[in-house]
Amino acid sequence: MDTNDLLKQVAFIKEIDKLKYIQRRTRLFESDRHENDAEHSWHLAMMAVVLAGHSDKPVDILKVVQMVLIHDLVEIDAGDTFIYDTSKNHTNTEEELVAAKRIFGLLPEKQAQEFLAIWEEFEEGSTHEAKFARAMDRFEPLLQNTSNKGGTWAEYDVEYHTVYNKKKAIKDGSASIWNYAERLLNESVEKGILRKDKNIKD
Amino acid sequence: MDTNDLLKQVAFIKEIDKLKYIQRRTRLFESDRHENDAEHSWHLAMMAVVLAGHSDKPVDILKVVQMVLIHDLVEIDAGDTFIYDTSKNHTNTEEELVAAKRIFGLLPEKQAQEFLAIWEEFEEGSTHEAKFARAMDRFEPLLQNTSNKGGTWAEYDVEYHTVYNKKKAIKDGSASIWNYAERLLNESVEKGILRKDKNIKD
Repeated sequence: MDTNDLLKQVAFIKEIDKLKYIQRRTRLFESDRHENDAEHSWHLAMMAVVLAGHSDKPVDILKVVQMVLIHDLVEIDAGDTFIYDTSKNHTNTEEELVAAKRIFGLLPEKQAQEFLAIWEEFEEGSTHEAKFARAMDRFEPLLQNTSNKGGTWAEYDVEYHTVYNKKKAIKDGSASIWNYAERLLNESVEKGILRKDKNIKD
Repeated sequence: MDTNDLLKQVAFIKEIDKLKYIQRRTRLFESDRHENDAEHSWHLAMMAVVLAGHSDKPVDILKVVQMVLIHDLVEIDAGDTFIYDTSKNHTNTEEELVAAKRIFGLLPEKQAQEFLAIWEEFEEGSTHEAKFARAMDRFEPLLQNTSNKGGTWAEYDVEYHTVYNKKKAIKDGSASIWNYAERLLNESVEKGILRKDKNIKD
């Protein structure tokens, strides 16, 4: 690699520092302190490495780790979208694609294309790696909310079935983690930290 | 993997949340806000992936990423040690080893041994992976300090030769990054944000 490449990479390294200022709705474990996107991304990378053995399919774990490390970088431009915000579409928005192209575009061209492809693969969610990475992204806030008396579920009055529908993406990555996650959801209803509307059919 | 393993892994995932509360002396880019260890670890993992092509030797990049993700976990028990604190030894201390055994010991036994070995390999600094990982750990605060009018060098009045001696570990991982780092150090002296004592021979 030449010096010109290194200068571009350093510009990218400086730019992504901004991820540390993007606040999430979720809070740290047993805490009132909101988590930021850089902390979240680190935690998902740790979870991916630790829980790799639970993936139902063989996965390239480096690819999974890269996905979770970069998956929220677009929020530097586009901002954090709360998963239970019904006014916003959570699919890969035009705004996020523009952000991805700008941010990854700081890198040398070949590397920019590689990172963009990894980000798009995560957003698409079709490959084994993307499914496992997305399972991690759903599992972390579930653990946080159960440690925080319902956390964002209680704070924004989100009903069990809505949570369940979001969380079942975990099933696409790991049967054993999903089995545990489902148990946590049921326990949360029993404890009264997750509201279950009986008029909605299971 | 069985449920018992998963419960241990979840206990570990919750415990390491504490890394987000460990403040470093360094500050974010062009900022007064201190960085915490989880943010730092995420940034090093991103740097390792982005800068892998600059490693002088072929490296297992997943191993490097694992090293930087976990390298500061011992600080949950042992606290952050400032690199320019002359009253403390920065080699692998007994206190850190006890911390590593406790924290990694939350994981299933085989995995605990694997993580402990990766952490020890990083601390030892002999393998190509450890050298490149340690280069990342030296390079990030150099970039931060130059963006913050000298940052911790100015704040704690650290002299050029002391900084140079710490930073030259970058050379063991990457000639091209070291070449750039050396230039940044010289520019910092010229700009007056890093004090150089002329009585000390180069």
